[in-house]
Amino acid sequence: KIMSEQETVTAPTEEQKTENPQEENKDVKENGTGDAEPVAEAEKEAPKEMRAVVLTGFGGLKTVKILKKPEPTVNEGEVIIRVKACGLNFQDLMVRQGAIDSPPKCPFILGFECAGEIEQIGEGVEGFAIGDQVVALPEYRAWAELVAVPSKYVYKLPKDLSYLDAVTITMNYTVAYILLFEIAGLTEGKSILVHSVGGGVGQAVVQLAKTIPNVTIFGVCSKTKHEALKNANSPVDHLVERGSDYVSEVRKISPDGVDIVLDCLCGEECNKGYNLLKPMGKYVLYGSSNVVTGETKSFFSAARAWWQVDKVSPLKLFDENRTLCGFNLRRLMYQQNGHEYVKNTVQEVFKLFQEGKIKPLLDSTWALEDVAEAMQKMHDRKNVGKIILDPSLEPKPKPATPAKGKSKEDKKKQSSEEKKEPEEKKEEEKKEEKKEETLTNGDSAGDSGRK
Amino acid sequence: KIMSEQETVTAPTEEQKTENPQEENKDVKENGTGDAEPVAEAEKEAPKEMRAVVLTGFGGLKTVKILKKPEPTVNEGEVIIRVKACGLNFQDLMVRQGAIDSPPKCPFILGFECAGEIEQIGEGVEGFAIGDQVVALPEYRAWAELVAVPSKYVYKLPKDLSYLDAVTITMNYTVAYILLFEIAGLTEGKSILVHSVGGGVGQAVVQLAKTIPNVTIFGVCSKTKHEALKNANSPVDHLVERGSDYVSEVRKISPDGVDIVLDCLCGEECNKGYNLLKPMGKYVLYGSSNVVTGETKSFFSAARAWWQVDKVSPLKLFDENRTLCGFNLRRLMYQQNGHEYVKNTVQEVFKLFQEGKIKPLLDSTWALEDVAEAMQKMHDRKNVGKIILDPSLEPKPKPATPAKGKSKEDKKKQSSEEKKEPEEKKEEEKKEEKKEETLTNGDSAGDSGRK
Repeated sequence: KIMSEQETVTAPTEEQKTENPQEENKDVKENGTGDAEPVAEAEKEAPKEMRAVVLTGFGGLKTVKILKKPEPTVNEGEVIIRVKACGLNFQDLMVRQGAIDSPPKCPFILGFECAGEIEQIGEGVEGFAIGDQVVALPEYRAWAELVAVPSKYVYKLPKDLSYLDAVTITMNYTVAYILLFEIAGLTEGKSILVHSVGGGVGQAVVQLAKTIPNVTIFGVCSKTKHEALKNANSPVDHLVERGSDYVSEVRKISPDGVDIVLDCLCGEECNKGYNLLKPMGKYVLYGSSNVVTGETKSFFSAARAWWQVDKVSPLKLFDENRTLCGFNLRRLMYQQNGHEYVKNTVQEVFKLFQEGKIKPLLDSTWALEDVAEAMQKMHDRKNVGKIILDPSLEPKPKPATPAKGKSKEDKKKQSSEEKKEPEEKKEEEKKEEKKEETLTNGDSAGDSGRK
Repeated sequence: KIMSEQETVTAPTEEQKTENPQEENKDVKENGTGDAEPVAEAEKEAPKEMRAVVLTGFGGLKTVKILKKPEPTVNEGEVIIRVKACGLNFQDLMVRQGAIDSPPKCPFILGFECAGEIEQIGEGVEGFAIGDQVVALPEYRAWAELVAVPSKYVYKLPKDLSYLDAVTITMNYTVAYILLFEIAGLTEGKSILVHSVGGGVGQAVVQLAKTIPNVTIFGVCSKTKHEALKNANSPVDHLVERGSDYVSEVRKISPDGVDIVLDCLCGEECNKGYNLLKPMGKYVLYGSSNVVTGETKSFFSAARAWWQVDKVSPLKLFDENRTLCGFNLRRLMYQQNGHEYVKNTVQEVFKLFQEGKIKPLLDSTWALEDVAEAMQKMHDRKNVGKIILDPSLEPKPKPATPAKGKSKEDKKKQSSEEKKEPEEKKEEEKKEEKKEETLTNGDSAGDSGRK
């Protein structure tokens, strides 16, 4: 059962308190458990530590660092997972930018999706045993060697689902399943327009939609991905170029328009798609993050204009026989008590996987230390399929250029950290033993305009 | 397939041209086929005539008259039906008031639903034979002894479905089916709030919803109907009083709210129901008529305020995980080319009837001549189940008071024709032979404030 938003105020658990970055910042001098004060911490008996991907401030790639953090302790209702694979999702990019509502205070451990083995079980947890192979959708903190997760966000893997496949499909296909079958009511013979069809959710939508007979899919993505999607045998019926006059393109093929539009807040003028809807059509706004704050970044602002400013008259929907839907997984799971609903959907996704109806599409795997590069690839929309972080992987060898010196030259060379891949990487190995040092390439990517 | 609105401009057929009330008004003197000029018509060779329920002007009961009209001729794509039963729907009341968008010019024959036997078949019609028992959803003109209907709006009756049952279920259950299964996606365990649960669509919703396991129904209607609904064994789980603080009532029983709200533009402050929606909930605005014109009557204006003035931000739907839907059968069928879609749904409804899952709930049957009284019963929300007009029925005996004389006394006696049932009825028998005379009670009900 899903509870209404009013019902979901719960007291933070002990673990949450100490792990909550807001508290951490304030309490670091008193209790020494924080890691913002390495010297103070070093004086105490060091707790066992783990590597984690930490956001040290909202913004570009340089704010994402690999840090040593204390291992989490297990609390009531939680399990501790030894992480084997982490899923990178678009919402992680939005979190990094601070383009979500009520973001936590930095620093905090990033990540909403991971798979691994259960190492500890807290009081009151039922249905899990140590050694269970699971996938989890925690609210942050998934990208670390260990994570403590409320068991309601943890799902046991069926036998034939590997860790890599699990983080490839769990979040993306759960979102796609809800969009298609719970919200849009996809049935035989219908047509769909999918924006960002090359992305993780886009590809999940395509696969799931094709489990229904006679469905026609129009997929919008950048021209550069068209070839890759064809090579991957993605069953999109009509690929349309991102940035083109996609409405005309679709009308050429289907003069009547489409039954379903999936608009993922992808930065396009997706709202044009509303007028492509046939009568009885459904327009679905989805995404994983919210954008109500004023601190918006240009990358995300295009779509927001329509979402925030334009409003729809109920009478217009009535006249037009149309439906307007919103779906926000993050809110549903963490604020609206929808975890049971999501859990049931995850089970449906696993079932489809076991029936061979889902073919996980993996783009690439990366070491934690290469997270910035991985994020940049998603940002540049260069991935086809899922991007995964694997804590067991060795980071890519980097040129041995010292990166800490932020010279004027660096600033000139890279006026926009968003636009280029970092050219210089630190030597991770040298820094492994230094607490509070950045272990990844974040700092090398220039910090123009941020200091 | 449903066509978009832009695609549906079709030239009027011959039959539509002559039957179109707007044309009729203009052409009456030239071609003599109109009936607004009885003298002119009497001079010509009289065509075969039939009785029909004609709206002579927008407004109260007195504008609804039983007139002799020329029998329709069949045109390409049409069939002519000998009408055995007519369904009265809420939209007929709205049409009478002129509370719809682009209403036809008066006079015209009312009615959107009838059942009967096919008497003639036009060119190009396939799948029908003379003698077929059918039900039809024409755009107006259903309430007459004969009607010419485009065959796309005509559905063959299964063997065990009588004319009376057919007009009891066809429109109401088709609307209810689309609302529940096509739009709201009702599935096991969900809860629904239904406004006007005592009405035709309301009762259809209740029956259809209960074909799904474990569905909870909250039904809002006037207190006076609660007993009747219980007597009819209507499976509403929780009856809530119309005009009460229904939101609190529902929350008492279901603190989390409901999954689906069906708002039928019934004149209540239905929009309060929006906040009763659980996350992933769906709010459905439906109705059969539109209300965009300025010539609104107070009876219909309460709900319109929200529908027309308030608008919904897509971002709000996204934040709240909610869906807002509009459904307008009239537009879908007659303007948006959705007749095939509706036909398929009608077949589903017939199937459910044959499986015994639909029990037609008949309120009462009336002679055409008693249509005003029948409409008043619906207006006063006194019916439980369908109100039907049967052209073969004898009108009720009326007190033999002449009604044509509109005395000052009449006006004083009944200051609002909407609020009271007519007290005086004409003697229909005396007027049967007089063309262009009102055969029903309309004129006796006073016309205060209208002249």
